[in-house]
Amino acid sequence: MDTTLKLAHPLAVKDVSITGGFWADRQATNRNSTIPAIHHQMEITGRIDAWRLQWQPGQTKPHIFWDSDAGKWIEAAGYSLMTNPDPTLEKWVDALVDLIESAQQPDGYLNIFFTAVEPQNKWRNLRDWHELYDAGHLIEGAVAYAQATGKTKLLDVLRRYADHIDQRFGPNEGQRRGYCGHPEVELAMVKLYRQTGDQRYLNLAKYFIDERGREPHYFDLEANERGDDPAKFWAKTYRYCQAHVPIREQATAMGHSVRAGYLYSGVADVAAETGDDSLLKADQRFWDDLTQHQLYITGGLGPAHANEGFTFAYDLPNETAYAETCASISLVFWAQRMFQIDPDSRYIDVMERALYNNVLAGVSYKGDTFFYANPLASYPYVNPYEHFSGITSEKHYHRSEWFDCACCPPNLARMVASVGNYFYSTTDDTLFVHLYNQNRATFSFGGQSIQLDQTTNYPWDGQIKFTIHTDKPASFTLALRVPNWCSEYHLEVNGQAVESQPTRGYLHLERTWSEADQVTLMLAMPVERVVANPLVRQDAGCIALQRGPVVYCLEEVDNGAQLANIAIPRKNALTAVFEPDLFGGISVIAGQAMRVEPLKWPGGLYQPQSNFQYGQTPFTFKAIPYCFWANREPGEMRVWIREA
Amino acid sequence: MDTTLKLAHPLAVKDVSITGGFWADRQATNRNSTIPAIHHQMEITGRIDAWRLQWQPGQTKPHIFWDSDAGKWIEAAGYSLMTNPDPTLEKWVDALVDLIESAQQPDGYLNIFFTAVEPQNKWRNLRDWHELYDAGHLIEGAVAYAQATGKTKLLDVLRRYADHIDQRFGPNEGQRRGYCGHPEVELAMVKLYRQTGDQRYLNLAKYFIDERGREPHYFDLEANERGDDPAKFWAKTYRYCQAHVPIREQATAMGHSVRAGYLYSGVADVAAETGDDSLLKADQRFWDDLTQHQLYITGGLGPAHANEGFTFAYDLPNETAYAETCASISLVFWAQRMFQIDPDSRYIDVMERALYNNVLAGVSYKGDTFFYANPLASYPYVNPYEHFSGITSEKHYHRSEWFDCACCPPNLARMVASVGNYFYSTTDDTLFVHLYNQNRATFSFGGQSIQLDQTTNYPWDGQIKFTIHTDKPASFTLALRVPNWCSEYHLEVNGQAVESQPTRGYLHLERTWSEADQVTLMLAMPVERVVANPLVRQDAGCIALQRGPVVYCLEEVDNGAQLANIAIPRKNALTAVFEPDLFGGISVIAGQAMRVEPLKWPGGLYQPQSNFQYGQTPFTFKAIPYCFWANREPGEMRVWIREA
Repeated sequence: MDTTLKLAHPLAVKDVSITGGFWADRQATNRNSTIPAIHHQMEITGRIDAWRLQWQPGQTKPHIFWDSDAGKWIEAAGYSLMTNPDPTLEKWVDALVDLIESAQQPDGYLNIFFTAVEPQNKWRNLRDWHELYDAGHLIEGAVAYAQATGKTKLLDVLRRYADHIDQRFGPNEGQRRGYCGHPEVELAMVKLYRQTGDQRYLNLAKYFIDERGREPHYFDLEANERGDDPAKFWAKTYRYCQAHVPIREQATAMGHSVRAGYLYSGVADVAAETGDDSLLKADQRFWDDLTQHQLYITGGLGPAHANEGFTFAYDLPNETAYAETCASISLVFWAQRMFQIDPDSRYIDVMERALYNNVLAGVSYKGDTFFYANPLASYPYVNPYEHFSGITSEKHYHRSEWFDCACCPPNLARMVASVGNYFYSTTDDTLFVHLYNQNRATFSFGGQSIQLDQTTNYPWDGQIKFTIHTDKPASFTLALRVPNWCSEYHLEVNGQAVESQPTRGYLHLERTWSEADQVTLMLAMPVERVVANPLVRQDAGCIALQRGPVVYCLEEVDNGAQLANIAIPRKNALTAVFEPDLFGGISVIAGQAMRVEPLKWPGGLYQPQSNFQYGQTPFTFKAIPYCFWANREPGEMRVWIREA
Repeated sequence: MDTTLKLAHPLAVKDVSITGGFWADRQATNRNSTIPAIHHQMEITGRIDAWRLQWQPGQTKPHIFWDSDAGKWIEAAGYSLMTNPDPTLEKWVDALVDLIESAQQPDGYLNIFFTAVEPQNKWRNLRDWHELYDAGHLIEGAVAYAQATGKTKLLDVLRRYADHIDQRFGPNEGQRRGYCGHPEVELAMVKLYRQTGDQRYLNLAKYFIDERGREPHYFDLEANERGDDPAKFWAKTYRYCQAHVPIREQATAMGHSVRAGYLYSGVADVAAETGDDSLLKADQRFWDDLTQHQLYITGGLGPAHANEGFTFAYDLPNETAYAETCASISLVFWAQRMFQIDPDSRYIDVMERALYNNVLAGVSYKGDTFFYANPLASYPYVNPYEHFSGITSEKHYHRSEWFDCACCPPNLARMVASVGNYFYSTTDDTLFVHLYNQNRATFSFGGQSIQLDQTTNYPWDGQIKFTIHTDKPASFTLALRVPNWCSEYHLEVNGQAVESQPTRGYLHLERTWSEADQVTLMLAMPVERVVANPLVRQDAGCIALQRGPVVYCLEEVDNGAQLANIAIPRKNALTAVFEPDLFGGISVIAGQAMRVEPLKWPGGLYQPQSNFQYGQTPFTFKAIPYCFWANREPGEMRVWIREA
């Protein structure tokens, strides 16, 4: 074990109070709308009652991952309660916890479907049936709720279940050498280890990761035991679940993208706890592959619907992008964990891109409807995921209140509720500031508690003012991230300009800080025309507009239809305009574009160019942040805009 | 019945001898390579032996539409034998015919799968199980083979089967009100009627068409009889098989595109035979919708993989285009039939587009491999129809020797073998010339046999010389098509210029013709930049190159990779260049294009435009006919090219 590893620990949710601005709005919506809406959906779809285990033949069957919805919702509630106490919400959680406790079997086993519906199939198909995944999400919920309230009932239930799992799975005689087809339990077991100090859970996480993909392959063995032909695996290849070879031998990010994100997060956790450099190296390899070859500008990943996941390098279709909300959320988890062992802003740059764009696009401005897939272009009558068999769908792609497979809504809820957890990390002597937003953070160095206030209108403005509050002078390094989108910045300490160059993406201010010390960071935030790598065929000839971390898009409601015919001349100026009445106050981008269209189309589908004349009609376009699209009148949307 | 309908009858295959040039090459390849290759595949896959009905549990099951492969292959052989006798081929067919005859049941029933494998399921699922479709293809084969050879064994077999079907299905007591989920038998029954003169077959075709989509819905009734829930139809809607409402109430071309093409062909046949104007009007409505809203420039149709069919107006994705080979072939059938009742070149323009582009792209230059789907753009590592689950397919999209569902190869074979059938139509007094290629046609007016020779290097050259051969002067109208791609033409009769304006697309030369009379038609054939309707978002900012009926494409082997980064400036000249050594002698298109790429990409997936400089490197591009793509070194392909 490499004991020299110096970890950067994130500040806990409870230690970062979002006091205003962009993320305060999102968290208020999350508390007041999203978390109750999900609870309501869980109630009306039977996901709460299902814990009574009273399913009878003929009734709607609980789904094999309903348990995980409960786990994620409890986790979201826990994070929310950490900073915003709410007796009603706590009562809801307590009632659900009672039900979950009542569903636990004498041996510790805990799963709705495989207790109430198909007990004969318990643990028979780890490849497809999500039991360990369910366990993981319940563990994460239990840990968060215990941290939030001090109530350990659910945590005790999940420890018993974790013990049951730990007895069943492992390398020893009498144990099964299994692991889950849908990774998640790995990172959950590390959380449980950190919460309880019980080393067995860390060992089990490590075991699940080490065993994955080894021969003889567990998924083959259990398929044979079931009487199934392993070669007839519906997803055709174990690449789908990152289990085709052991993780240390895998070369690229591949397969189902949420599974990938959770697995790579667990790998980073185990690397952090054990100092296993081979795991870190594998994770860095996946990270480089993803971010150099397979990441949308919105922080979306996994373009393909067929496998809900990755295809190959530079394949980034826009209109059919799957880019699942959960995948971007898993990327946020993973990025934070990579920084923990390899403190470089390159992870946080990607994390910020995902957070402000793909992740937030997953939920409506009102907070009660959700996207599963997050395309980068959308056209009327096109909903590639509902379209089939000549149905002319009269709809625009729109957010839904719920899904049969409802992973995304509660994932969004826990992400937004816990966003404070992604703002800061500390080492022995350094406070890293990753994200900028109005907030108050509480941390300590050498036993001394210190507070840091941020005052800013980020991401609409690049000026951030930091104020230190400390009873007595404190020596530590304040490390401020210079985002990779920023090419010009200015730094002042107590009104005096300070020259500083970033180290691994952070400006390091090492000094003894006193009460009311002020630091001001000014990040120049011009509108950028962003161009994709020339190997990305889908974006050839196009630009995307970005300002700060925010990626913009055109919507039909602002720019008329046929967005594909709009081109922005390279020479035209682009301006950010703050609109106080739009979505609570946001910056839009405006400028002169042209509609390049025939003056009069002679008719039909195809015409020789000589048969008509083009018009190039200039007009003032308006681009809005991608994360707010599909919240007004339905219509076309487009991130990549043609350049003239 | 409208007895005023004056039909334009196509000249039969045997009456049009393709004597050289483009189509003679295609037919030679078809005879020497394609037809034998399909026979070989039928042999090695068990499709011939299956007629012995000796399938045993444990063996590979015959597929429910293997019968149709035999029918189409026999039909192809029949057409080929009409103009090119070949004792070996005839022996193969005779042997297969013997097997088919031996498989017929005492009551006339004839189907491999539902005799040898699942007799208990005979006629139980017309919606999905293709029995009538199989019957239709066998009938078409039997008619063609009887016409070619005079041998009626197979025709007699199929008449018995048709009688069996006619007894079973119909509106009378004791009959089932069924029709096939996959239309085809309708047009086959009309062929059988025309061959035999037995009106029952026409009535049955008409019945199948009239009954389709009526309530109570037959597909609902038979599903209930099977104990299946009709609402759980796998394709979700009867639009998939054009059976959601009766045909006369259907508004647009929709559903599975091959089913659509066959059905609309059968509708035209019944309209022709019965003079039913409501059927003609329905077909014209579908035609207008298809050609105004849903047709690729290559004559491909049905963009979606999910339903192998149509989506909605102006939705024409290029890289993921399904555009099944069989669908374009069915469009050729349909177009010919529309002209028969409504003699206008607009049908033939589309027929010619399909023939020279999408149809011929379905088969390799060597004739022994086939495309099922015909995308209009292709990139390395992209095979959307094999790609799944994170498999990084190391392949380019390529033609296959065979398919489990092998509808396309024998369909291509019969299309190419019978192409002469699409060259001419006659009415009482007029010979319509639709297509141009070296050939000799034999026809008669008033009992007098006349021959017409075409001499031309079409489609590479627009000059066509016609020579009349007749024992004595003959009065008739020679009607020459001016294709819709041609805006300038010149006509001479015996060396004298003739002024003529086309009527419904044809130049009518009404005169008394004598031996050795010569007509010369010169169609100006410049390279055209074609632009798509501005509502086709996928082609915005792009042009396609077309010369005559031939649509061109860029291939990587000629132009390097990253075809998406190539742009052709609008002002640049484009030249057709005849390359005698390429694919037996073809015209390519050359000109100056530009590679618009960063001079040096700074790295990563995304960069602000200010971080690099563009290079605009001029180079001489070369475009080849789309129908010949994927015959050389594998690589990218692109029909729609960016314009600079």
